[in-house]
Amino acid sequence: MTKSSPVDLVTETDQKVENFIISLIKEKYPSHSFIGEESVAAGEGSILTDNPTWIIDPIDGTTNFVHRFPFVAVSIGFVVNKKIEFGIVYSCIEDKMYTARKGKGAFCNGQKLQVSGQEDITKSLLVTELGSNRDPETVKIILANMERLLSIPIHGIRAVGTAAVNMCLVATGGADAYYEMGIHCWDMAGAGIIITEAGGVLLDVSGGPFDLMSRRIIAASSRAIGERIAKALQVIPLKRDDATN
Amino acid sequence: MTKSSPVDLVTETDQKVENFIISLIKEKYPSHSFIGEESVAAGEGSILTDNPTWIIDPIDGTTNFVHRFPFVAVSIGFVVNKKIEFGIVYSCIEDKMYTARKGKGAFCNGQKLQVSGQEDITKSLLVTELGSNRDPETVKIILANMERLLSIPIHGIRAVGTAAVNMCLVATGGADAYYEMGIHCWDMAGAGIIITEAGGVLLDVSGGPFDLMSRRIIAASSRAIGERIAKALQVIPLKRDDATN
Repeated sequence: MTKSSPVDLVTETDQKVENFIISLIKEKYPSHSFIGEESVAAGEGSILTDNPTWIIDPIDGTTNFVHRFPFVAVSIGFVVNKKIEFGIVYSCIEDKMYTARKGKGAFCNGQKLQVSGQEDITKSLLVTELGSNRDPETVKIILANMERLLSIPIHGIRAVGTAAVNMCLVATGGADAYYEMGIHCWDMAGAGIIITEAGGVLLDVSGGPFDLMSRRIIAASSRAIGERIAKALQVIPLKRDDATN
Repeated sequence: MTKSSPVDLVTETDQKVENFIISLIKEKYPSHSFIGEESVAAGEGSILTDNPTWIIDPIDGTTNFVHRFPFVAVSIGFVVNKKIEFGIVYSCIEDKMYTARKGKGAFCNGQKLQVSGQEDITKSLLVTELGSNRDPETVKIILANMERLLSIPIHGIRAVGTAAVNMCLVATGGADAYYEMGIHCWDMAGAGIIITEAGGVLLDVSGGPFDLMSRRIIAASSRAIGERIAKALQVIPLKRDDATN
């Protein structure tokens, strides 16, 4: 099936995995809140309160999943008082389990992660996505942003098709920054703390503080790289995840 | 070090791996010819004759290699009378060995490969790259081509940073087509036969017959998808690999 556009795909599996995860956690923590991609698609709210909240993307990279392109992740972030306390991203086909807990570091299959620390944008490799919005104005901005970054110049841009795995690749040091606009809190909550616990920084695309519900992110190996990317980006107008209308 | 542009990287390892491969093969087949990325960079010719010729990319994805972005391949194609007889692409970090021999099928770690066979471009996932050319006109054409394809619409575009692995992803059925202009015969010779032996087709970006020395390719899961991509692409002027001046 499709959601926001003819290329925004969703499968039965997304819904099954989300229901499975939420029902298991609810048994143990009946008072906790949940924000899940498919629950929101089905009409549930996505207002983040101070209550302990599990933010879940059952399949990050649904288009990849449909095509058997080998990057698909389950992403879970646990947020209390609006701060991410721990995060898990499981890249299923690669069998890579990324985890991070506040103050305790970030790991992939138990191995400690560290961002590259690169500060020179001209030596950087970035990850981002072309997204699933096919509105001509939005596509133009996405490509113009790439053009401005490429002409700095940078070493290159990669795109594996899932926000969570892209962010984990920054956490491993394999890429120096990830940026995107139009994604959702469930794409960022799990990997967000993996980035910061690996020594990276989260920024808004304006260069200001990161906001989990804003649908925009720069996840960088250093503040210098993050701010340089922010300077290059034209912002895409977006309705927030917690917009009430 | 850098080659054609400040972001076209090369390492000592590229040269060492190429020398290692060529010297081993030469011992056994002293009359054979070689076209290797680093030998050509060092001034050797890249004219393809009818003599048995090994076309070698010691590290496809050197930028990834420098950054530890986890897609790096060794690519070897064996060509006789200007036809690819067999090809090998070893994606080192993934530990995936792709092989194909004319008439004998294509395999990954021994498992038979089959392209998706997708014929509907609006249901397709494509792979390509932004490349290492930072000439403003070239970057504009590359991004305009993406814009035209996205607006068909297609499901998406991915880029893992090596032509050979991108092509192997088409051979597995994980993506429906790969296209690129500006790459070289050593990026295509190994994976080219992996595509065709997996049931895919190779076309020129004009839609005409594929030419290994032309620096341009569409590798598709079906002729229909390949021809539709060709229709969307604006061609980038390029000096052929076998240009004599």
